[in-house]
Amino acid sequence: MSGSSFGNVLKITTWGESHGAAVGVVIDGFPAGMEICEEDIQKYLDLRKPGQSAISTPRKEADKVEILSGVFDGKTTGTPISLLVRNTSQHSADYNDIATYYRPGHADYTFDSKYGFRDYRGGGRSSGRETIGRVAAGALCLKLLEQMGIEVYAYTRSIGNVVIDEDNMDLNKVYQTVTRMPDEEADKKAIALIEECKKNLDSVGGSIGVIVTGTPAGIGDTVFNKLDALLADALMGIGAVKAVEVGDGIKVSQSYGSDNNDAFCILDGKVSKKTNHSGGILGGMSDGSDIILRAYFKPTPSIARDQETVNKNGEDININIKGRHDPVIMPRAVVVVQSMVAITLLDAMLLNMSAKADNVIRFYKSID
Amino acid sequence: MSGSSFGNVLKITTWGESHGAAVGVVIDGFPAGMEICEEDIQKYLDLRKPGQSAISTPRKEADKVEILSGVFDGKTTGTPISLLVRNTSQHSADYNDIATYYRPGHADYTFDSKYGFRDYRGGGRSSGRETIGRVAAGALCLKLLEQMGIEVYAYTRSIGNVVIDEDNMDLNKVYQTVTRMPDEEADKKAIALIEECKKNLDSVGGSIGVIVTGTPAGIGDTVFNKLDALLADALMGIGAVKAVEVGDGIKVSQSYGSDNNDAFCILDGKVSKKTNHSGGILGGMSDGSDIILRAYFKPTPSIARDQETVNKNGEDININIKGRHDPVIMPRAVVVVQSMVAITLLDAMLLNMSAKADNVIRFYKSID
Amino acid sequence: MSGSSFGNVLKITTWGESHGAAVGVVIDGFPAGMEICEEDIQKYLDLRKPGQSAISTPRKEADKVEILSGVFDGKTTGTPISLLVRNTSQHSADYNDIATYYRPGHADYTFDSKYGFRDYRGGGRSSGRETIGRVAAGALCLKLLEQMGIEVYAYTRSIGNVVIDEDNMDLNKVYQTVTRMPDEEADKKAIALIEECKKNLDSVGGSIGVIVTGTPAGIGDTVFNKLDALLADALMGIGAVKAVEVGDGIKVSQSYGSDNNDAFCILDGKVSKKTNHSGGILGGMSDGSDIILRAYFKPTPSIARDQETVNKNGEDININIKGRHDPVIMPRAVVVVQSMVAITLLDAMLLNMSAKADNVIRFYKSID
Amino acid sequence: MSGSSFGNVLKITTWGESHGAAVGVVIDGFPAGMEICEEDIQKYLDLRKPGQSAISTPRKEADKVEILSGVFDGKTTGTPISLLVRNTSQHSADYNDIATYYRPGHADYTFDSKYGFRDYRGGGRSSGRETIGRVAAGALCLKLLEQMGIEVYAYTRSIGNVVIDEDNMDLNKVYQTVTRMPDEEADKKAIALIEECKKNLDSVGGSIGVIVTGTPAGIGDTVFNKLDALLADALMGIGAVKAVEVGDGIKVSQSYGSDNNDAFCILDGKVSKKTNHSGGILGGMSDGSDIILRAYFKPTPSIARDQETVNKNGEDININIKGRHDPVIMPRAVVVVQSMVAITLLDAMLLNMSAKADNVIRFYKSID
Repeated sequence: MSGSSFGNVLKITTWGESHGAAVGVVIDGFPAGMEICEEDIQKYLDLRKPGQSAISTPRKEADKVEILSGVFDGKTTGTPISLLVRNTSQHSADYNDIATYYRPGHADYTFDSKYGFRDYRGGGRSSGRETIGRVAAGALCLKLLEQMGIEVYAYTRSIGNVVIDEDNMDLNKVYQTVTRMPDEEADKKAIALIEECKKNLDSVGGSIGVIVTGTPAGIGDTVFNKLDALLADALMGIGAVKAVEVGDGIKVSQSYGSDNNDAFCILDGKVSKKTNHSGGILGGMSDGSDIILRAYFKPTPSIARDQETVNKNGEDININIKGRHDPVIMPRAVVVVQSMVAITLLDAMLLNMSAKADNVIRFYKSID
Repeated sequence: MSGSSFGNVLKITTWGESHGAAVGVVIDGFPAGMEICEEDIQKYLDLRKPGQSAISTPRKEADKVEILSGVFDGKTTGTPISLLVRNTSQHSADYNDIATYYRPGHADYTFDSKYGFRDYRGGGRSSGRETIGRVAAGALCLKLLEQMGIEVYAYTRSIGNVVIDEDNMDLNKVYQTVTRMPDEEADKKAIALIEECKKNLDSVGGSIGVIVTGTPAGIGDTVFNKLDALLADALMGIGAVKAVEVGDGIKVSQSYGSDNNDAFCILDGKVSKKTNHSGGILGGMSDGSDIILRAYFKPTPSIARDQETVNKNGEDININIKGRHDPVIMPRAVVVVQSMVAITLLDAMLLNMSAKADNVIRFYKSID
Repeated sequence: MSGSSFGNVLKITTWGESHGAAVGVVIDGFPAGMEICEEDIQKYLDLRKPGQSAISTPRKEADKVEILSGVFDGKTTGTPISLLVRNTSQHSADYNDIATYYRPGHADYTFDSKYGFRDYRGGGRSSGRETIGRVAAGALCLKLLEQMGIEVYAYTRSIGNVVIDEDNMDLNKVYQTVTRMPDEEADKKAIALIEECKKNLDSVGGSIGVIVTGTPAGIGDTVFNKLDALLADALMGIGAVKAVEVGDGIKVSQSYGSDNNDAFCILDGKVSKKTNHSGGILGGMSDGSDIILRAYFKPTPSIARDQETVNKNGEDININIKGRHDPVIMPRAVVVVQSMVAITLLDAMLLNMSAKADNVIRFYKSID
Repeated sequence: MSGSSFGNVLKITTWGESHGAAVGVVIDGFPAGMEICEEDIQKYLDLRKPGQSAISTPRKEADKVEILSGVFDGKTTGTPISLLVRNTSQHSADYNDIATYYRPGHADYTFDSKYGFRDYRGGGRSSGRETIGRVAAGALCLKLLEQMGIEVYAYTRSIGNVVIDEDNMDLNKVYQTVTRMPDEEADKKAIALIEECKKNLDSVGGSIGVIVTGTPAGIGDTVFNKLDALLADALMGIGAVKAVEVGDGIKVSQSYGSDNNDAFCILDGKVSKKTNHSGGILGGMSDGSDIILRAYFKPTPSIARDQETVNKNGEDININIKGRHDPVIMPRAVVVVQSMVAITLLDAMLLNMSAKADNVIRFYKSID
């Protein structure tokens, strides 16, 4: 219900505006006893923060996380984990004039329509800074998933018309390029494209791919909380995402059943699949193969060109937006995508523990 | 949490397996006082039911809905509306052998992984029959939305490589073709394609488009219950959907900001947009333009060809599935898509009534 | 949110009015693989149904339950279990005149205030018949709890001023008396009191006690979903309940800490308590001792005496309610209380399985 | 689900331990546009904070609230409101030895049972400091309710055997006595009782009363989210509460229907009631009369006397708890009770806005 919470057994609640005092997240329902420290979280926040390269906004933000609760003696306690990041690099004056009009491609007009007014400084609540909370929460989930042999990889798959070669990528190199493309050649081309964009006072879209390895079969629900539906919700809930694909995605609409059906087979004594068109999910539940997702991002709406729009007095006007903006979103969004997938998957796994009566009985008999 | 419920203020809970006694839905939180009768619901169920044309499964099912509660004197009472449809055309014997193996592209293996066993008759809970509950609930939501001037259109947009001409379609003619394509020429081509599929003992994928007109601006939430995220969840939660697009969808990944940003303008004294790349949603909230969505469906996994798979003893086997199946899903799924969009939108609208403190105060002052 | 659902991991949704076609429940999230048949459920419904003795309403209702989904090969499948009971003994004509006025002590006026009108036949949605769904769901939960060594006992503790001797009761004899008092002497006195009530065209209140044995320590949450808060919600949510106590209840308000604190001790090598003033719950979590609760019921509001009230035209009037009513609620409510406690406890236990990171990791490592 | 969240349309999430860095709350779904500043919140926190009088703990805590998000230009923005209070007066060393044993009446043992270990400093998450978040959230809700003509009063009703005269109390004087008893004579007696308690190294229980005026009829739900069930959940969820009454409460169990039924009557042209045994709630919905509640608190478990208990090695031991504790809870809990009632009621009122189809249609037609 509450629009700033995500998840069920494991629930995160983010809060904060870009130019308010701080942003943060409360993580509730996280299992007790996992070792965690601020550095574990900071390393993911650092992958998200601006000012990391020539292709991202020159804003410098420290984005230092503080653990306020839920961790004791270096371990999660089971109680809500509150994480705080102070906002430090706010140039609110940059935004004074945008109070009076609606920026194209932004949520200014819809905010005013819903709430009657808005915090017009930066993106306010719709700012990318809100995702700090998601990444901080994701850091904990990724750590617990890892201990169960599950790895969540996300990577920039395309920027504009530059698409990486997914058949030859090394997922361990994602964070070695500034574009987060695990493909050095594509990285170079993309950087060139972005430079041109900047010169043109423009921005460009792109896509992020996800591969999750190690998920056991049977995670997710069969009708409404299908694992793919939950993941679609998670990805479409990231600002600027306009499309989500699972497995073969859009391509399935031109496929034939005889091609698209993945044949089951026995491999090393276990049920496996000869192909993975399904992207690791069948009937809303994980099928044991890699989970494969793609999210498609629109170009950053903040561009320095002249644009037509309207003001709050109902007049057509021309505007020219100031400020320090990213010409592409993907490099900084990769870790956000990775985080949202981790949160979604871990939540579904926690819920799944009670799926079988036998497991429930065995669990409680073992406590005595 | 519960995997068979959808929605927040307005919540639907579907239940039932394809070869059990019945399927149904409980609709809770529906506003009181709207006129409704069984015919209002039946007309939508009839659009979903099998056996309507040569291109769908020859199974005949009456799918007669019974209102069991929540309606009195011809009006909704505000209490849960329970709707029941008895299953009548079950050939369970058709399915006896599939108990022992896992059909490719189906949820058989994932069901067994999650729950330890499954109702193997038909699709069980993963059957298309589960969507009867969604369509029945959708019928009520569509009726209430209409009274607020909101129309939800869904239509078959493509079958295999046959794509309709969306620039020249008449949305009032969707249900006049057996494919549910609002384009007579494409309809003919698609029928030919389907006939060939049937001859080849194969199936084929496709896509469904959605256009919602009349939605006021400001519906939806800004971070996690974004209207587009809720709709992505709703559509990806329909069996066989593998991709969801909002507005320009995947195309935005190759767009530039200067093209993709929709300029605001004043039209007839109101804020409007010159283009609608956003698909009617900005920052998670409706922007007053048409809401535009697309869902991509994989080919029906049930095909009559020989297929490779494994059985429950862990052996590689060849199978040949019997039964009466749809070679394409889209014609019957159109009304399911339309229903899920209506449920999602109405739920978000009910929640939105308390977004402004002034409205809350005015509402309760007017009661005295 | 939805007012007809209860529970989180395990969620029940009841529906139906007293004089509609049927009443029922959908149980979602129930673990798969537990054996269940209609008789398992029917035996609890029979404890609730009217016409069982001279002290309850003479209405005869078969209340035969039908399992519509979620059970296959005699076992729960993990999918929603839909249970239906047809209404058969409706004398709707009895209620025609009450459409025009508000019965004292009933929900007639509040229903009209909330929804603008109401199903005025019988109690409509507020009828005791709604609890059929709760009892049917409770039957499943009680069965699973039993397999974990947990017994939920409920019993009539008092009727009017007749209070049982709780120090000498045999909880296995609850259902051997018509009052559901596990105390033969009190039973006789209570029957006499009820007979007098009937003669006086009056009704009388009472209370129901609950003892749960075998609950492991640590179930429940620490702040908002405290086990006692969830149980208070469950019991106060039963029609006619006006007070709920845990452990020593109201008495604690006059106790001193030195008396009220239960000393921990080691018994048979395990942590135990010397006393149980806490009623088995400390800090919102079960402490391993018996859980002790009491719910207090107001007298049935339906009495045959003349009463003052108002009609829908805003006039003061005198009324005399016809119909077949229970002079006391407790005998039939005992199994409702037992059911609600079982549902609440099992739900909390399912959620609790993911409380420790070690258990989560061990669970998923054991699946491979 | 998540154990640190409360509410549906309006949801609060509290976090923080007594001896961690801070405590706080995130309030989501609060309507936009209400004026609020830190002083509005601080004045309620000051009513809760310790060290206010000779009868409460001598700990001094500033409890200064900081608004971190969700407020702009002095008004709520509709986005989550994050409130933070730093912990400043922590004597963690006081608690080092309690790490090794389980304090009677505290959540130490149940925490260890559930999570495997605990933050043993102070009450950790079970500390009264957690209620700072509830009171801060309550401050906002009380302010909005006031603007709709609704007042929520809470007061100390009894301490030990000293009970106030509720027939002659002045609810505007609650915060003028240190006990929060709106009865000067009882206040004096209670202070004497508390002084004796302190001398005896003991603590004592008590009760808090609630009266809500001005609630319109029809708020709350009819089956599971009954207004009284939600309030019972809210009150039983406050630490130390062991019983909750609505209206006549426990007394109804000895009442007769002819006495307990409140006759409706017309007063000043409106439907009213001649008596209010129901406590303002019928069938789970407000009936327009004052809402009347009582919560019963156990004595503070922290007492300085010798007590028997067990340690983590499974040995019986004697302990003597150090620290600065309240001999009674009521004076500081009054504002917590007031807050929880306000949050619960406002949440139910926000949800209620969509109860009638006519209102929904009218609301959205008026937007155009």
